[in-house]
Amino acid sequence: MKLNIAVLPGDGIGPEITQQSVKVLNAVADRFEHEFYFEEAVVGAAAIDLLGNPLPDATLELCKKSDAVLFGAIGDPKYDNDPEAKVRPEQGLLKLRKELGLFANIRPVKAYDKLVDRSPLKAEIIKGADMVIFRELTGGIYFGEKSTSEDGRSASDLCTYSVEEIERIAHLAFKAAQLRSKKVTLVDKANVLETSRLWRKTVKEVAKEYKDVELDFLFVDNAAMQMILNPKQFDVILTENMFGDIISDEASVIGGSIGLLESASVGSKVALFEPIHGSYPQAAGKGIANPVASILSAAMLLEHFGLTTEALAVRKAVEMSIALNVCTPDINKDNHYSTAKVGDFLESVI
Amino acid sequence: MKLNIAVLPGDGIGPEITQQSVKVLNAVADRFEHEFYFEEAVVGAAAIDLLGNPLPDATLELCKKSDAVLFGAIGDPKYDNDPEAKVRPEQGLLKLRKELGLFANIRPVKAYDKLVDRSPLKAEIIKGADMVIFRELTGGIYFGEKSTSEDGRSASDLCTYSVEEIERIAHLAFKAAQLRSKKVTLVDKANVLETSRLWRKTVKEVAKEYKDVELDFLFVDNAAMQMILNPKQFDVILTENMFGDIISDEASVIGGSIGLLESASVGSKVALFEPIHGSYPQAAGKGIANPVASILSAAMLLEHFGLTTEALAVRKAVEMSIALNVCTPDINKDNHYSTAKVGDFLESVI
Ligand SMILES: CC(C)[C@H](C(=O)O)[C@@H](O)C(=O)O
Ligand SMILES: CC(C)[C@H](C(=O)O)[C@@H](O)C(=O)O
Repeated sequence: MKLNIAVLPGDGIGPEITQQSVKVLNAVADRFEHEFYFEEAVVGAAAIDLLGNPLPDATLELCKKSDAVLFGAIGDPKYDNDPEAKVRPEQGLLKLRKELGLFANIRPVKAYDKLVDRSPLKAEIIKGADMVIFRELTGGIYFGEKSTSEDGRSASDLCTYSVEEIERIAHLAFKAAQLRSKKVTLVDKANVLETSRLWRKTVKEVAKEYKDVELDFLFVDNAAMQMILNPKQFDVILTENMFGDIISDEASVIGGSIGLLESASVGSKVALFEPIHGSYPQAAGKGIANPVASILSAAMLLEHFGLTTEALAVRKAVEMSIALNVCTPDINKDNHYSTAKVGDFLESVI
Repeated sequence: MKLNIAVLPGDGIGPEITQQSVKVLNAVADRFEHEFYFEEAVVGAAAIDLLGNPLPDATLELCKKSDAVLFGAIGDPKYDNDPEAKVRPEQGLLKLRKELGLFANIRPVKAYDKLVDRSPLKAEIIKGADMVIFRELTGGIYFGEKSTSEDGRSASDLCTYSVEEIERIAHLAFKAAQLRSKKVTLVDKANVLETSRLWRKTVKEVAKEYKDVELDFLFVDNAAMQMILNPKQFDVILTENMFGDIISDEASVIGGSIGLLESASVGSKVALFEPIHGSYPQAAGKGIANPVASILSAAMLLEHFGLTTEALAVRKAVEMSIALNVCTPDINKDNHYSTAKVGDFLESVI
C-alpha cells in the first residue's frame, strides 16, 4: 500500500517521540513491502515562533492532501502563563481538528498485565480493564463563541451541540461496541446541562438501531469516581468534548503511564493519530519521553487502513519492549532506556 | 449557643442520613449545653411530588431565616431519564445555592489511616493525603443561559464568570491555605477557555496579597490524572463550578468511600452543609447508606459557628466508629451496621 503521511511533530517532546514512530513505520513499510511517504510541517508554538501562526496554511494544505496525519504534541508554558496572549499553540490543533472534520477522538485504555503493578491503583481493580473512550472532538465548549467584556471584567464560553453532531459519533461508538462487549456508557451532566439532555435524548434514539448493545448513563462526576473504583465496568464510553478530555486523561492511570495511551481522530477523509499526552515541555530534549503512545497511535493508523497484520506487529513489538523492560523512566525507573533507544528496539523487532 | 437549623432531607437516602446528623447534633447540644432548634422542609423530587416545585417558597423562606441549613441529597432517576422534564429536582438545590449566595463549596478530602486499605488506590499513594477543594458554586455553566432551538435540533449552555465572582472565592481559598500548607492549585483549562483565562489572571492578582502562599496551575485534564497519581501534592485546590464537581467526586476515592465526604457551602449570611454524595436512590430505605458524610458536614456546621470543641467531639466519634468498624457496608463489607445503628453509636459516644 502507498500512503502519504503528514508528520506534525509540534512542541515539547513532540518531535522526539514522533521521530520514533516514523522509524517504526518505516520498518513496517520495509518488512511488509509498503510505500510510506512522510512529509513534515510545523504546528503549535513551533509554528508561532517561525511564522506567527499556530496552523500555517502550508501545514493545513499538506494535511488535507495526505492520507493521514501523524501528530506529536502541542503546548508551551510561555503561553499558558500569559492569559493575554492573542495567539496560542492549542489553536493550531483545534483548528486542524475542525478543518479536517475530525469529530471523533477514539482513545483505547487498557491495563497491560506486565504493568499492573506500576499503576497507582491496586492490581485487582485494574486487571482486565479494557475500554475505549469516544470523545466528541469538534463541538461543545471548545468551539462555541468565546468572549471577554470590553472592560475585561467578565468572560464567557458557549457550549453548543446539535443532533447531527451527536448522532454521527454515537453511531461510531455503537458500532465499536458491537465488535467489543456490547455496552455503551454515555457520560454527561443531564441533571444540569441542556446540551447533556440533548445528548441523552439523541443517543437513546440512536441506540434503537443497535438492539444488541446495552446503553447506560452516568453523570460525569460519578463517572470520574467510577473510573477509579471499578474501571472494569466500562466497555465503550461515549461523551462530549470537555468531559472526554478530562475522563480520558484520568483513565490513563489505569495503564500505569499516560505515555502509553494512543488515540485516533476520525471523521471525514483524512484521519489524525496522536498520543493523548501533551507536550511535556519539562522533558523536551532530555531523551526521557515515552515514544510508545505515539507508536501505538501509528499502529492505529495502520489499522485505519486495514493493515491489521502490520498493526499487530507494532503492538507485539511494544508488548515485547514492556516484557523486556526496554522502557523509558516513566515505566522503568531504575534502569531505563532513552526515547531513541526504545524506538531503535521497536524498529529492530518489527 | 442558640442555633436555628433548617433541615432539608431531600431525596433518596437524604432523609435517613440527615436523621442521624440531627441525632448527633442533639447529642452535642445536650452535652455542651446549646440550644439547637430544627425545622424540616421539603426540597427536590420530594417537593415536586408534593407541591410541583423543587424549591417551594416556604422552604426558601425557612432557610433564609435560619442560621444554617443541613441538607440531605437531591435527585431521582425518573427525571434523569426524561430529557423532556420541565421541572427537575436539581433545580431546587441550584436555586437554593443561588438564593442564599453560597458561592464557595468547601470539600475537604483526606485519607483515614484506618481506611487506607479500602481505597482502590495503593496505600503508599494516599497515605497522608489531605486537601481541601474550593469549588465555585453559583456561577459558570451551571447558571449561564441555557437554550434549545425551536425545532429541538440543537442546544446550548453558557459558561460565564466575572472578576468579582472569582476574587471572592479566591480570597477564601488563599486564607484557608495560610492555615494549612500554604499552597493553592488553580485547576482550569486556560489553554482553551476564555473564562479559565479570566480565572488565571484574576487569581494571579489575588495571590499578590498572600505572599506566603505558593500558587500553581494545572489544566483540568492533567489535574484529573494527578489526583490519582499523586494526591499528596495538593493542599488547597481552587476551581470553577463544573471542574470542582468532577474533581471532588473523583477525589472521594482517596478516602475509600464517597460516603465519608463532607462539604460546607458558604457565601453570605446563611451557610449550608451537605454530604458530597448524591441521593443514591437504589439504596434508599434499605438502611445501608453511610451517614458519616452528613454527620461530618454537621461537624463543619459546628466549626462554622466557632464550636470547635463540639466539632472535634463529632470527628472523634466518627474516628472511633471507623476504628471499631461500626460502619455501613460501603466500608465494612462483612459485618456491617445499619445507617441508624451507626447514628446511634455516634450519638452515644458524643
Ligand atoms: C492541547 C489541548 C487543546 C488538547 C485538548 O484539550 O483537546 C489536549 O488536552 C488533548 O486532550 O488532546
Ligand atoms: C445534584 C447536582 C446538581 C450537584 C452538582 O452537580 O452540583 C451534585 O453533583 C453536587 O456535587 O452537589
